[in-house]
Amino acid sequence: MKQFSIGVDLGGTNLRSAVYTPGGGLQDRRSIHTRLEDGPQAVAEDICRMIVEAKLAQSDLACIGVCVGAPGPLELPIGRFHTPPNLPGWDGFNLSDVLQRNLDIPFYIDNDANVAALAECHLGSGKQLGIDSLNMLTLGTGVGHGIILDGRILHGANGLAGEAGHVAVWPDGEPCNCGNRGCLEMYATAKTFYREATRRAAAGAPGIRAMLKRSPEASPSELYALASAGDADARAIFADAGRAIGICIASLINTMNPALVVVAGGISDAWPLLSPTLFEELESRSYIYRLTKPGSRFKQNTIVQRAELGPDAGLIGAALYPFVYGEHQ
Amino acid sequence: MKQFSIGVDLGGTNLRSAVYTPGGGLQDRRSIHTRLEDGPQAVAEDICRMIVEAKLAQSDLACIGVCVGAPGPLELPIGRFHTPPNLPGWDGFNLSDVLQRNLDIPFYIDNDANVAALAECHLGSGKQLGIDSLNMLTLGTGVGHGIILDGRILHGANGLAGEAGHVAVWPDGEPCNCGNRGCLEMYATAKTFYREATRRAAAGAPGIRAMLKRSPEASPSELYALASAGDADARAIFADAGRAIGICIASLINTMNPALVVVAGGISDAWPLLSPTLFEELESRSYIYRLTKPGSRFKQNTIVQRAELGPDAGLIGAALYPFVYGEHQ
Repeated sequence: MKQFSIGVDLGGTNLRSAVYTPGGGLQDRRSIHTRLEDGPQAVAEDICRMIVEAKLAQSDLACIGVCVGAPGPLELPIGRFHTPPNLPGWDGFNLSDVLQRNLDIPFYIDNDANVAALAECHLGSGKQLGIDSLNMLTLGTGVGHGIILDGRILHGANGLAGEAGHVAVWPDGEPCNCGNRGCLEMYATAKTFYREATRRAAAGAPGIRAMLKRSPEASPSELYALASAGDADARAIFADAGRAIGICIASLINTMNPALVVVAGGISDAWPLLSPTLFEELESRSYIYRLTKPGSRFKQNTIVQRAELGPDAGLIGAALYPFVYGEHQ
Repeated sequence: MKQFSIGVDLGGTNLRSAVYTPGGGLQDRRSIHTRLEDGPQAVAEDICRMIVEAKLAQSDLACIGVCVGAPGPLELPIGRFHTPPNLPGWDGFNLSDVLQRNLDIPFYIDNDANVAALAECHLGSGKQLGIDSLNMLTLGTGVGHGIILDGRILHGANGLAGEAGHVAVWPDGEPCNCGNRGCLEMYATAKTFYREATRRAAAGAPGIRAMLKRSPEASPSELYALASAGDADARAIFADAGRAIGICIASLINTMNPALVVVAGGISDAWPLLSPTLFEELESRSYIYRLTKPGSRFKQNTIVQRAELGPDAGLIGAALYPFVYGEHQ
């Protein structure tokens, strides 16, 4: 009997699911509103209902398991949330308990950035390059970070590994909600582009000022269009963000010597404007990168590039998860 | 027949070996001058001779293998050096080839900081606390960094993982020989204490100035004595170093969520003066540390402390190595 798995992506806005088969990729996608207003128990029940419905719809296939990708901080393997900023009211909630009571198939819970990295490794750039270890940074409203070693997620002692978004790239820099200063998250996410645009507009920057007049909540993509058209102030914002990303990746390379680092998320669409300063920082700040970069005499080169999978990486990774981890139950 | 292994510590000054048995610890220690002046081939032959002699001396025991701990950058598993700063003239030299030709027992080569971390995990604080994953920073003339996951060394793609000494703690800070700026190595090693003492003396600091007059090449331990006696300028130097170490450890915790981080090396003798600012930085810069520190509701707490093993950690780790890795050959 052909096998399938179910992936669930628990987001602060939408709850999505999909069925996955190794040959056929994602199928039977479903999406509902995440009822945060009704509390974690109600959302957890929605998750279970969604899984049961997705499973019933595949009556001719054998379900090997389900995985829920969720925003952190999420304590693993226990499955308990700790003041997750994107799931207000979920502090201390144990999702694992609810799944345990309601499901009769193997289930897994993991951090959304971890499952996205798992997908990128097994089905994206990792697969393409024949590399089974990577670091993935997803730059969007926040920073997601997942670490894959030998094809499996590095969880750390409590499931909290992978918070490069809160590595201080400028230790005296912008204060972050996490308590740190100068976190990568303060320099390479959607909100930081808006912050920098506003600052530069206040200090001159006629192009940005005109843009903010037309569109007061200017998105990174509007700023990108302005920069692509040659506006020096807008370009400088992307150059600074690239520098921050480069400082962070240099630290990751100097710490873990990964064969592959991929950058994903909406902000990575600005790669042509981010990457020059990003690679400048890598060149100067990581002797490991310099020694091992493509073309070097090292057996395994260090590759830094955009991710192959798009915004579905998290859903794909959750769906793939039972196939990667199931054999080891 | 009782089993033993042989560990070799290849240093820029001395070449040391010891025999190890699981019950008896280190025995038959030997040490000779590292003939750097005669080139890598001569030193490699000394290593082989040392191993053969150590093996012959244990004629009633079975040798399961030997491991050489060496300074990096060392490409693994191939065993080739890449411009190692402490082994001038060794660029491109492949130690593995020489051992292969001269030894008839299983041999291993690894980075000296890695083997020290392996020892600390299996026989030091890791063993004491029942933890099989850790990060170890050895602060001396440089910074050694080793990462152990599930009892084994994290090597990364090329054997170069574990260079937290070149993580930028102050990205606009002191230029480092590695090409980066503001590396941990520029703030928490022997040379940096001397640099800071000189700077502060030039700007006033009567206590430090008097010390430098008495002892122009003031060591960290002399500065420590001055600080312990209450000299505010000397204390500030240790406080700054503790801050740099704390920033680096916060990044390691935010990246890998290790259960245990240990600080070793001569500089760690100043722990009482380093640790207050070190922990201040951890508290403010790592929400993972705050959430999981000793006393928290997390199942696994994050522990940061001094290493248990002393300066022999590298030799012990090299000797232990064949027992950890041998079964997997």
